[in-house]
Amino acid sequence: MKLRVHVTPRRGVLDPQGAAVKGGLTNLGFDGIGEVRVGKVIDLTLASTVDAEAALALGRDMARKLLANETVEDFEVEVLG
Amino acid sequence: MKLRVHVTPRRGVLDPQGAAVKGGLTNLGFDGIGEVRVGKVIDLTLASTVDAEAALALGRDMARKLLANETVEDFEVEVLG
Repeated sequence: MKLRVHVTPRRGVLDPQGAAVKGGLTNLGFDGIGEVRVGKVIDLTLASTVDAEAALALGRDMARKLLANETVEDFEVEVLG
Repeated sequence: MKLRVHVTPRRGVLDPQGAAVKGGLTNLGFDGIGEVRVGKVIDLTLASTVDAEAALALGRDMARKLLANETVEDFEVEVLG
């Protein structure tokens, strides 16, 4: 069972890494770029005995306890199968 | 037009951040965790005059030129609409 967790800066929270990427892309000649946000993606392989629903619950628990800082970050958990 | 670019360590490339996350989760009592890989997710907003196909091509170009280091990282580009 594979899980993918996205951890992204919350709306309204300053994202200096995103601003740097936007600046870099603009300097390279890419035009018309609006907002850029940079987050993390964590891919986890779980024991195959876990079903999809349990995996999703487990992923959310992991995100709350370790992967994301909910004060400044949002997370989404997705089962990749 | 929104784009999402995933940049992940290539298979076979050491991922110390992934190993640290796996260690942290195990210490918190999460059992049966296999491989953990940590990458980046970059969300970009493009000018709305670009169509989906052009946006995808643009995203790949950005990934090759700035967002990913193809020696050690893979990337995937996705149009979110």
